[in-house]
Amino acid sequence: MGNLYVALMHFPMRNRRGEIVATAMTSIDVHDIARSARTYGVVRYFVVTPLPSQQRIGWRIRGFWTEGERAMEASRRGDALEIVTMSHDLEESISWIRDAEGQDPLVVATSARKHEARSVSYDQLRAEIAQGDRPVLILFGTGWGMVDEVIQACDLLLPPIMPGSDFNHLSVRAAAAITLDRVAGDRIGGKEDG
Amino acid sequence: MGNLYVALMHFPMRNRRGEIVATAMTSIDVHDIARSARTYGVVRYFVVTPLPSQQRIGWRIRGFWTEGERAMEASRRGDALEIVTMSHDLEESISWIRDAEGQDPLVVATSARKHEARSVSYDQLRAEIAQGDRPVLILFGTGWGMVDEVIQACDLLLPPIMPGSDFNHLSVRAAAAITLDRVAGDRIGGKEDG
Repeated sequence: MGNLYVALMHFPMRNRRGEIVATAMTSIDVHDIARSARTYGVVRYFVVTPLPSQQRIGWRIRGFWTEGERAMEASRRGDALEIVTMSHDLEESISWIRDAEGQDPLVVATSARKHEARSVSYDQLRAEIAQGDRPVLILFGTGWGMVDEVIQACDLLLPPIMPGSDFNHLSVRAAAAITLDRVAGDRIGGKEDG
Repeated sequence: MGNLYVALMHFPMRNRRGEIVATAMTSIDVHDIARSARTYGVVRYFVVTPLPSQQRIGWRIRGFWTEGERAMEASRRGDALEIVTMSHDLEESISWIRDAEGQDPLVVATSARKHEARSVSYDQLRAEIAQGDRPVLILFGTGWGMVDEVIQACDLLLPPIMPGSDFNHLSVRAAAAITLDRVAGDRIGGKEDG
């Protein structure tokens, strides 16, 4: 299996008025997505923000659980947060992976909206990861979604999680968990254990 | 498809020392699981706590988004929170469903630990829901898990989400999202749209 990476993008994002903004990092996004990522064998979870003050908060959240006595907690929260890395921008995350892997990752965008170009199914991405030829980096957005320029700069784009639903507002924490389960989870429909 | 219900249990739960406690409700659990539940067509999301002060907080969180000007928000948060109902205990949730459906639901427990008895696979539960003979109520725990008496009182039990992983500490928000996707999501491996 190829190495899997995820990034949570806080810039450049759209706000509800369509303006380009840097969204605020939240502790719950750092924790929840780190726990999901660690469960599914993700190598690194990049929290991407250009704001130095936000980066400091991110490192502090990580350090709180990975250093000192809390690192021994039975919740193993430190094991999850150890894979968190603060990143200035997408290019810095890609560059981190390039240094670690010796090649650029396949960069995959996610979106709650439908896009036509470069769409890849969850099964296809799953096969790609299983084949393991290249590391894969999956991007998740915050606010009202990534700007089109970022989506267009990605190699591939996953479709919305529930295109058939009349409600299209999953939290990014839920969307990240479901996406990881679809592309890297124990296969549903395996053995019947009832 | 049969009607699907979820419940988030705050009592009787285990804490990290194995004692039986009522855990604290959190706003993020109410919001995130409501959004996931609404996405997957869940009819009601019961937040189960015996503490009147906690129930009042839950109703207030719901009302904040379902009443007044915030009910018109583009985030449609009110649409998600409308399916939230505070419940005193599991029996009250079951009784709510009995009144609405004319029959008792099939009650399904989830657990991060392995149990042998009455285990049902995600695919089997998916088929059960698709068949639609009975409403289904899926229970999620908080704290360090539901007491065995509750698990034993359920009709069926889903296995851990990632039994093969060496890290077994998903947030309940992530676990609920993944469980709903597995039993009620658009089927992975459908049409290839790349």
